[in-house]
Amino acid sequence: MPILCTVDVVLLTLNPQLQVALLPRDRAPLAGALALPGGFIHADEDADPLAAAARMLRAKTGLDCPYLEQLATFGGPGRDPRGWSISVAHVALVPADLLARGAAGLRWHPVDALPALAFDHAQIVAQAVARVRSKSQYSSLPVHLCGERFTLPQLQAVYEALLGEPLNKVSFRRRIDEMDLLEPIEGERTGGAHRPAQLWRLKDRRRGALTLTDRLLGPAVLAP
Amino acid sequence: MPILCTVDVVLLTLNPQLQVALLPRDRAPLAGALALPGGFIHADEDADPLAAAARMLRAKTGLDCPYLEQLATFGGPGRDPRGWSISVAHVALVPADLLARGAAGLRWHPVDALPALAFDHAQIVAQAVARVRSKSQYSSLPVHLCGERFTLPQLQAVYEALLGEPLNKVSFRRRIDEMDLLEPIEGERTGGAHRPAQLWRLKDRRRGALTLTDRLLGPAVLAP
Repeated sequence: MPILCTVDVVLLTLNPQLQVALLPRDRAPLAGALALPGGFIHADEDADPLAAAARMLRAKTGLDCPYLEQLATFGGPGRDPRGWSISVAHVALVPADLLARGAAGLRWHPVDALPALAFDHAQIVAQAVARVRSKSQYSSLPVHLCGERFTLPQLQAVYEALLGEPLNKVSFRRRIDEMDLLEPIEGERTGGAHRPAQLWRLKDRRRGALTLTDRLLGPAVLAP
Repeated sequence: MPILCTVDVVLLTLNPQLQVALLPRDRAPLAGALALPGGFIHADEDADPLAAAARMLRAKTGLDCPYLEQLATFGGPGRDPRGWSISVAHVALVPADLLARGAAGLRWHPVDALPALAFDHAQIVAQAVARVRSKSQYSSLPVHLCGERFTLPQLQAVYEALLGEPLNKVSFRRRIDEMDLLEPIEGERTGGAHRPAQLWRLKDRRRGALTLTDRLLGPAVLAP
């Protein structure tokens, strides 16, 4: 019996809490059950697991996510009734303001109040959320859940939503400064007439990869 | 064409520099080429990819490694001449003083001076080494490369070998204290008559998982 090889994508957004995209399965096994967007690796067209995940995400959600990374591989004899199977699971992040452009049919659920999911997808979501929260402690990852432009209070709120606790404004801004992530958008401010706030964006050279801090932003928790 | 599903293990030790275990392949394809210990997942006996890696490690090296974790999955049409293949790669750490008990036939090579390797194994080793060095910055991982008992200068030397730079003794000890990892072994000291050094070991409750620091021990580099 060959082993079944699939990819699954934990697509997350922040709106206003952390939410995951689910789709009802359109075929057996477990037709109708809520599951992560995913499917079989296509040996004739996929260059690697990441390419398979990107193809799946486009096909099932209409989204080209700027942030897509491999999470971990789940496998075993019992996770799929069709036989010993592997899922190379991925995490994708999408800013909430991009969702209007695609993603019809997706059902968004807060990660802290999930319905029953097909297969071992609840476990995959839990590991993805732990990874995202862990990386939020020491990297620029949360910026990928912000829109193209944001104020520093908005960015701090995104970090706080992911870390699950309030951050000290002064030390938060010091960490952000140290990472050298952001540039002000000249002439662009937002908010009321008396206290307009500067708008910022990620520097071009920071877009390709995560940037790390050398001091954690929140309490230390283990990356899975 | 079914996808070929394998596991590979990057088995590392520190002796005195970081070294990886290689085995000459005993069959086609690439017979005789140096490769990581690995092989096909057995759907009839493996409970999951980690169990497959542990089975492979025992079969090919005689070792039961206390530290074994999944690294990442490598896959694509070109990495194995037999067809589209997946390798769920793992990292295992073994203290050098355990090697005498097993591991006959392994060839140890410094990770910074590798010979040519079969398949994409050089890339897998590079990612494993980057992961281990990255985690050494903020966790108890290096302890798993020490023997059962060690002095604090020995532990610092292990961290330094992994991080590739000298550490300040005072701040190193503060980080180690903060992690609450170690306990002194009563009555056990080592070294010369006039300056015996205390021997330490990992606390029992710290054995199951890594412990994190909230401030990095070395320069920030990105975990792959």
